[in-house]
Amino acid sequence: MFQSKLFYKTEKKAPRDADAASHALLIRAGFIDQLAAGVYSFLPLGLLVLKKIEKIIREEIIEIGGQEILMPVLAPKENWEKTGRWKSFEELFKLKGQNNKEYALNPTHEEVISPLAKKIVLSYKNLPLYLFQIQTKFRNELRVKSGLLRTREFLMKDLYSFHSSEKDLDKYYEIVSKTYNRIFERCGVKALKVLALGGSFSKYSHEFQVETPAGEDFIFICKKCKTAFNKELGLKKCPECSHSSFDNKKAVEVGNIFKLGTKYSLPFDLKFKDKDHKEKPVIMGCYGIGLPRLMAAVVEVNNDDKGIVWPKEISPFDIHLISIDKNKEAEKLYDDLQNKGFNVLYDDREDVSAGEKFAESDLIGISTRFVISEKTLKNNSVEIKDRRKDKLCLTKFSHIFQTI
Amino acid sequence: MFQSKLFYKTEKKAPRDADAASHALLIRAGFIDQLAAGVYSFLPLGLLVLKKIEKIIREEIIEIGGQEILMPVLAPKENWEKTGRWKSFEELFKLKGQNNKEYALNPTHEEVISPLAKKIVLSYKNLPLYLFQIQTKFRNELRVKSGLLRTREFLMKDLYSFHSSEKDLDKYYEIVSKTYNRIFERCGVKALKVLALGGSFSKYSHEFQVETPAGEDFIFICKKCKTAFNKELGLKKCPECSHSSFDNKKAVEVGNIFKLGTKYSLPFDLKFKDKDHKEKPVIMGCYGIGLPRLMAAVVEVNNDDKGIVWPKEISPFDIHLISIDKNKEAEKLYDDLQNKGFNVLYDDREDVSAGEKFAESDLIGISTRFVISEKTLKNNSVEIKDRRKDKLCLTKFSHIFQTI
Repeated sequence: MFQSKLFYKTEKKAPRDADAASHALLIRAGFIDQLAAGVYSFLPLGLLVLKKIEKIIREEIIEIGGQEILMPVLAPKENWEKTGRWKSFEELFKLKGQNNKEYALNPTHEEVISPLAKKIVLSYKNLPLYLFQIQTKFRNELRVKSGLLRTREFLMKDLYSFHSSEKDLDKYYEIVSKTYNRIFERCGVKALKVLALGGSFSKYSHEFQVETPAGEDFIFICKKCKTAFNKELGLKKCPECSHSSFDNKKAVEVGNIFKLGTKYSLPFDLKFKDKDHKEKPVIMGCYGIGLPRLMAAVVEVNNDDKGIVWPKEISPFDIHLISIDKNKEAEKLYDDLQNKGFNVLYDDREDVSAGEKFAESDLIGISTRFVISEKTLKNNSVEIKDRRKDKLCLTKFSHIFQTI
Repeated sequence: MFQSKLFYKTEKKAPRDADAASHALLIRAGFIDQLAAGVYSFLPLGLLVLKKIEKIIREEIIEIGGQEILMPVLAPKENWEKTGRWKSFEELFKLKGQNNKEYALNPTHEEVISPLAKKIVLSYKNLPLYLFQIQTKFRNELRVKSGLLRTREFLMKDLYSFHSSEKDLDKYYEIVSKTYNRIFERCGVKALKVLALGGSFSKYSHEFQVETPAGEDFIFICKKCKTAFNKELGLKKCPECSHSSFDNKKAVEVGNIFKLGTKYSLPFDLKFKDKDHKEKPVIMGCYGIGLPRLMAAVVEVNNDDKGIVWPKEISPFDIHLISIDKNKEAEKLYDDLQNKGFNVLYDDREDVSAGEKFAESDLIGISTRFVISEKTLKNNSVEIKDRRKDKLCLTKFSHIFQTI
């Protein structure tokens, strides 16, 4: 991509209401644009990162048997009345269509997937079943803040599992938990698995929390056994070892996993015929990851005073190629890199100073930077720099593909 | 994918209200599921096709300079008031959020992209600019019908172009028109370019129409010069050659292209500084393709009395491998094909008759079928059949990768 054509604009100043590093940096570097409070557009740079996160999640969830589907945003009121959540789900966006038909904008999809599964799941032979989607959710939040950390509209991966026994659910729950660690690691963050409020079926659920001062959640970590739990649980003693002194951290929830049991299969009459020919309710689990929030959390823990520092696997481009003074060598290198399968942002602009180019490059934060200038050309070389490190490495054109 | 695990169910009968072949077949073959009138879920088979269509469109639009972004579903009322369409756009879904803030569910994105472009486009140097997204749209249609042919929620590719002159818009308009032909061709349909209602800026817009009795549009085609126009234009004479006898066809609109001129740049004050240092309004064009409707149109023209006949490039899987009687050879072939990069649906079910397997395979309509049975095994062979043709071809295992 030629930077002279790229649809973006960087800003020197953060928006007035920016109260988190990720908010300020994603706006300043031209990744996102605010349309309304808690409602954002993804510009080309931002969408590239979002798609890379999406790809990682899709690969990992398919790896553990997930089948991808796509459910709608609109759900009829009746579905949400069946579980009582038309009234009890406070953040539910509601609207009326033709003939005064009422809909919810789904904030989660238990009310849609349970009756859908009922049409196809008949016997124990259809179980276990793992269905997921990567789809836009809506929450009528009272207050939004911190850019992508809490929004009213956001892309979410929601996975639902269906089982013939609690034991089978427990097994899959652990598998998803491990997969979540791998997803967050590939995205460049370490997420702590934290005990959180459960439901009627299980005492606790689990959240995956990324430690950052920008977080809205308070986490207690047992000083003795390191068990972590959300402050909302209000425990005085560690639920694992009964120790009672804790470290206290602020964190952002990037994912959660929840044993639903029969909470949704019962109201939607989702049953299966077991090996013993008896009809039994299906046991369910659900597992969410909010993609924009994960993207923001990545930025919270991967930035410096110059800008964003994207982890390699979700960097919007593989390489930021900067040409100081227009020259043929940069054009050729750009073509060569693209032909070898690298995605390159090529700063081909002629009316911008070297200083400005470097400052913008630091702000945008592509993981690897190549610089071609008069100086490097004298050595038939390009300067290569990892965004994380200060060290420059002068590499001969002829050796580039051995180096990277 | 093992068919024994696939989340789908086929139906012998069409839903009572199915008034189009695509509606009946996509439901019967387990590609989609209706949640509400005009609101559908895509099951794994359906989503695979939708993603392939999405991939084709993305490739082709990027090829003509499109930069992908992602704009929100929610837009503030103020944006829609600015153009007068809060009142005049009849199918606009409206809702209220916190503090009685009103939103539209965007049915199209001129009201979002124009103020967004204004933040970045400053000078003629930023033009032309081509931005697109593949994103979910909402239309509060009075009546919905025919499955995916007219829905209230649907995935759409919307491309917007921004120009410094009408001449430049005209040029790009023709480029998009050619690209649309290529997209529809790759998806397996022939779309007629048809004159349709224009606006204040241009006398006509253009629609891309696929001829089918299931269509809601009436198309007139001049018998002399073959110019086609939508009946809504109400012309008595051909606008090209003034001839007055026409062929009359029913058709489905799968895409449209429209010269917007300054219709949206004026209310949003979207200007640029030209080479002559004068500020001028940006000239815009917009270009849409409804993905689910295109998918339905493909089915309308690619089916037979047994089921769907997917064109190769958007077939949910490359190969439907059917094993009659469980055998090791089928397992091995499945692995070999997958390792060679083919996506295979493998009918590994043991409790289903050969007849049922073939009937389901015909209904689902994967473009190529492989059958391994006792008979073919005697010849160390597999039976290969193109879904379009009756002819079978017996191929030795050792020759498969030379054949396909």
